[in-house]
Amino acid sequence: MLNAHRYFDASEPIRSIAYDLYQHIKDFPILSPHGHVDPKILAENQPFPDPAELIIIPDHYIYRLLYSQGISLESLGIPARDGTKVEKNHRKIWRIFANNFYLFAGTPTGVWLSHTFSEVLGIEEKLSGKNANKIYDQISEKLQSPEFLPRSLFQKFNIEVLTTTDGASDSLIYHQKIKKSEWTGQMIPCFRPDAVIDISQPDWKKDIKALEKAAGISISSFKSFLSALENRREFFKSMGAVSTDQGIQSPYTHDLSPTEIEAIFQRALKQKPTKEDARMFTAHMLMEMARMSVEDGLVMQIHPGALRNHNQFIYNRFGKDKGCDIPVRTEYTRNLYELLNKFGNESRFSLVVFTLDESTYSRELAPLAGHYPAMKLGASWWFHDSIEGMMRFRQQVTETASIYNTVGFTDDTRAFLSIPARHDLSRRIDANYLARLVTRHIIDLEDAQKMIRELSYGLAKRTYNLY
Amino acid sequence: MLNAHRYFDASEPIRSIAYDLYQHIKDFPILSPHGHVDPKILAENQPFPDPAELIIIPDHYIYRLLYSQGISLESLGIPARDGTKVEKNHRKIWRIFANNFYLFAGTPTGVWLSHTFSEVLGIEEKLSGKNANKIYDQISEKLQSPEFLPRSLFQKFNIEVLTTTDGASDSLIYHQKIKKSEWTGQMIPCFRPDAVIDISQPDWKKDIKALEKAAGISISSFKSFLSALENRREFFKSMGAVSTDQGIQSPYTHDLSPTEIEAIFQRALKQKPTKEDARMFTAHMLMEMARMSVEDGLVMQIHPGALRNHNQFIYNRFGKDKGCDIPVRTEYTRNLYELLNKFGNESRFSLVVFTLDESTYSRELAPLAGHYPAMKLGASWWFHDSIEGMMRFRQQVTETASIYNTVGFTDDTRAFLSIPARHDLSRRIDANYLARLVTRHIIDLEDAQKMIRELSYGLAKRTYNLY
Amino acid sequence: MLNAHRYFDASEPIRSIAYDLYQHIKDFPILSPHGHVDPKILAENQPFPDPAELIIIPDHYIYRLLYSQGISLESLGIPARDGTKVEKNHRKIWRIFANNFYLFAGTPTGVWLSHTFSEVLGIEEKLSGKNANKIYDQISEKLQSPEFLPRSLFQKFNIEVLTTTDGASDSLIYHQKIKKSEWTGQMIPCFRPDAVIDISQPDWKKDIKALEKAAGISISSFKSFLSALENRREFFKSMGAVSTDQGIQSPYTHDLSPTEIEAIFQRALKQKPTKEDARMFTAHMLMEMARMSVEDGLVMQIHPGALRNHNQFIYNRFGKDKGCDIPVRTEYTRNLYELLNKFGNESRFSLVVFTLDESTYSRELAPLAGHYPAMKLGASWWFHDSIEGMMRFRQQVTETASIYNTVGFTDDTRAFLSIPARHDLSRRIDANYLARLVTRHIIDLEDAQKMIRELSYGLAKRTYNLY
Repeated sequence: MLNAHRYFDASEPIRSIAYDLYQHIKDFPILSPHGHVDPKILAENQPFPDPAELIIIPDHYIYRLLYSQGISLESLGIPARDGTKVEKNHRKIWRIFANNFYLFAGTPTGVWLSHTFSEVLGIEEKLSGKNANKIYDQISEKLQSPEFLPRSLFQKFNIEVLTTTDGASDSLIYHQKIKKSEWTGQMIPCFRPDAVIDISQPDWKKDIKALEKAAGISISSFKSFLSALENRREFFKSMGAVSTDQGIQSPYTHDLSPTEIEAIFQRALKQKPTKEDARMFTAHMLMEMARMSVEDGLVMQIHPGALRNHNQFIYNRFGKDKGCDIPVRTEYTRNLYELLNKFGNESRFSLVVFTLDESTYSRELAPLAGHYPAMKLGASWWFHDSIEGMMRFRQQVTETASIYNTVGFTDDTRAFLSIPARHDLSRRIDANYLARLVTRHIIDLEDAQKMIRELSYGLAKRTYNLY
Repeated sequence: MLNAHRYFDASEPIRSIAYDLYQHIKDFPILSPHGHVDPKILAENQPFPDPAELIIIPDHYIYRLLYSQGISLESLGIPARDGTKVEKNHRKIWRIFANNFYLFAGTPTGVWLSHTFSEVLGIEEKLSGKNANKIYDQISEKLQSPEFLPRSLFQKFNIEVLTTTDGASDSLIYHQKIKKSEWTGQMIPCFRPDAVIDISQPDWKKDIKALEKAAGISISSFKSFLSALENRREFFKSMGAVSTDQGIQSPYTHDLSPTEIEAIFQRALKQKPTKEDARMFTAHMLMEMARMSVEDGLVMQIHPGALRNHNQFIYNRFGKDKGCDIPVRTEYTRNLYELLNKFGNESRFSLVVFTLDESTYSRELAPLAGHYPAMKLGASWWFHDSIEGMMRFRQQVTETASIYNTVGFTDDTRAFLSIPARHDLSRRIDANYLARLVTRHIIDLEDAQKMIRELSYGLAKRTYNLY
Repeated sequence: MLNAHRYFDASEPIRSIAYDLYQHIKDFPILSPHGHVDPKILAENQPFPDPAELIIIPDHYIYRLLYSQGISLESLGIPARDGTKVEKNHRKIWRIFANNFYLFAGTPTGVWLSHTFSEVLGIEEKLSGKNANKIYDQISEKLQSPEFLPRSLFQKFNIEVLTTTDGASDSLIYHQKIKKSEWTGQMIPCFRPDAVIDISQPDWKKDIKALEKAAGISISSFKSFLSALENRREFFKSMGAVSTDQGIQSPYTHDLSPTEIEAIFQRALKQKPTKEDARMFTAHMLMEMARMSVEDGLVMQIHPGALRNHNQFIYNRFGKDKGCDIPVRTEYTRNLYELLNKFGNESRFSLVVFTLDESTYSRELAPLAGHYPAMKLGASWWFHDSIEGMMRFRQQVTETASIYNTVGFTDDTRAFLSIPARHDLSRRIDANYLARLVTRHIIDLEDAQKMIRELSYGLAKRTYNLY
């Protein structure tokens, strides 16, 4: 069903050159240095439930678009936290999806789904209202066979490393379980302490308690808070972690004096801190996290620029991560000034910066990454992790930063089945990008072959120390 | 003179596929759900005056560019409101235009003009200083023939619906005249109350008086102001209106308390309101207009982001809409927060949002429209209503919002003769966009055929309820 | 080594048409109306030193990228001002460069270098660690021959005019030397008074003293400051200058009252002025510089939007212009409001505006330049002076401003040897841009031929009065 030359430019010689470059690396193992797959899946290795539960209900890319067309989340079985009843008949949910599958034409979700259906699940027809039931049955049957157990798929997908994202107090119980098992697949955690760094979030004090417990350190001062974090980083490292991550609205970085930061921390512990307190605390914590990375060698990632839970109605009923986070304009040149001046010249430090604001690619991010030894650019992300989005990233970043200040592809996905689709797409788009350069004699074939190896494997391997 | 494959990519198979897709829909009727044609033209159905009066003098796209090259507006016959004498010899004006026609190479105005000359007026040469007089005569002659009367052209252009834009107090006399005539062409008004919503504009009190009179309601409080607007919306609906429109600098939306909004309204009635008053009044009125749309079903359009009358010299001498409105950066994620949280989950409400700030396509607008059921994206607009501009719109919007959260093409023109050119261009660019996707196997031909029908007809028909 | 069709789209007929258009103008003389070549080079006409000294050490494009990959500036021989020892073995520097030459694949620096190596220096292999020594020797030998003396290259490069950039107090001694010599090459200065306009820069008072001396005018008031500047402009004009230039962070323009500007000037003379003083002084000086240009006919250029010396460690050790200036978001519509309202309607005034913020191309700059007679758009600049960058400029600017409100190519380079590479690249990209339009029947061949002549020669000649 899928064309071997898909996603390449149709015109020759681009298509042939892209295809050759792609052939060169298409079977390289998958490095996934950042993502959101639930570690439980691989720790327990149980059969996946039915098609709706596997494909629709956990994927906000899918139901976001269905919702935008007036299909309620209740009818799609998205669990409500306010007691609202939601659809329990998963075949019915599947039929709604199938009837509206045409909506995904021209979207990356459509591309990933077509790969998942065809290459992973062996479905040979385009999903529609007519064949919805038949395909539901076909997938259901597949999911019961041993080849579709999570670990079998992990191996079939040729995943070399899969990174999860885990809170500061997480016990990493599933990572431990795997370590103790005979299974040799490499699944590693990533340290993401957002919940304890954002002092404005409602559960902050509860999360500090959890951190105290996890670290075995009583947290009564900013200093003890830092010690607890350092303790947890050490634990994550012992469990294989190579990186940290932070989701923040603004990448503003600023060092506060010990007195100032302590005062904010105490206000947060004792009463409701102000908005400005929260902003300054995050700014200071970015500095501290960078300092710790310089010390312990964990790669520091930042994912800024989303205004979370824009739709309060959806948030109140269904909770967070429901497809209603919306990007805002993001500034890097001034915001990263302090951090880069303090740590940016350290070659042993790696700061991987992502963005949701494409206007910063050529204006701010490529110039910064093309100068500071520590700074690298994360792949095009979230709304921009698409055919056009990846091409814009390469076209707007490479000329100033070169490919060597980027870090390879990050799938950033919750959808385990879509991992090969996402890496395959990225490899094809990079091959196509390079083929365009070759046909225009901007680079030669030798350059292109080296570069496609770097983009699909080498850069991620080296940046994230995946050895 | 015009090539049948114009505006498609030259490389095969894109060109052939684009051409086939275009053939599929090129004769579809024109739906024009937003524009600025003077309704008098079709109500009175008089012959168009001479070529300069028809083509140059009313079109700020044309004289803006001539002016930028040092050609005075006086010499182009643009009427002055300060008593300045302007050129009255229209043949002379035409010659200036012809001598400088080369300036339009590569601009959408150039493309529209070549269509108008060749397809509408049957001119077979490229306009230049040499053939200026001859072509002036050819056009002048044509304009006297019955086939060039406005209603004949309306029919020849295959216009199914033509929407005008009308002030809140407009009597819609020309719409009434047409309703009463035996002519069956569908021309409908759109309710645009900018003059009474912008309390900072110098004629506001005069415009409130006019609204009082039109609605037959005495306006002494904010509440009676709302009643008058509701009354006028009802009247517009009775005259066929399906939509409202608002031209605003910032799309900031905010609900004020009854006391606050009343206080601002009274300040506006009694004295000069502050800039902040005007800003808050508009923010609140966007909420009220949305509320009314939820109630009466009129589609709500907003056109934000132009700093009007940037050139005060031109404004003082020639008035508004003279090609000196300049876009400013525009923010949507935070500005539309209140409106979308209050009304964005209503599927029976349609909010069509336009922009002059292309950096918001992928960052803010597509994510918002790809989530909220009520929000849809208007076509690429004004400075971006061009070959490259339309392609950027599709490439930056579709992957996140899909084509189904866009609303089809809006010509937004004052230039009646250019309507077929504009729709033809849009259809060609959409066909080319889809053909690119087909050749890269991102969508298949079946998808593309459905999508081109939607883009050129279906989406506008459904969004604007044009039945 | 270099392909004759390089940088053109591979697909026919674009490639052939681009090639034909390029052939048409490739031998046109080079007009370089803005750049940073050291005038001493041509005044003294001494052999260039070794390859590292010629190619690497003065070019921050090159060592910026090497530095970003962890290679210290000390090891590249960049002179330190703090006494730090730097590498003196230039062959060793060259080897580091050669070993890392692969980093430049896909960057404009890579493209310029390949031209310089192949077309200027006659090197027939791709530089690498293996052939580093051999190529070092080949270039060294060449540099000793008479054909590689600066003036011989000037002639070989077919440069008609080369513009340098010079401070307000510069004696233009090298320009004088050339004037007095029998050499007829045209090298002209450009008046760039940044040092005396930025009252916040540490050496401002010293620079005012230098201005006093150069102008022979005692500067005790703002009025005498203006007189001194006017005096220097006159002197620059007498030395052939046709333009001024200003590097500023924000293009904010604002007229202060005589009392206000005098007060700021006195504060600057007597004590440390505030940040706001500096901002307002620059805003006012942009108005004064425009006024002077209206009076004396010098073209006014502005280069806004760089945050200079972002990396303080590098700045402290190596000084300015070391590859660590980073762009910031820039606003034009509101910032240029006062200047354009006061002088923008003057056709005898030319204001050439550059940008580092590509998001302003279609949103602000093209609409402004497509309306105001005085305003023109400088070529894509610095980080955007690249294959993709130049194409984005044309695609985002032409439809609204037409090519006729742009000013042709500016190389803006310090690297004398790269001048032909840069102009050749620009001509190829413009030819390719036009060829795309021709194959899509947006323009015809006749238009394209006229336009390529304008883009590569005519526009610069007329805008900068290079007669």
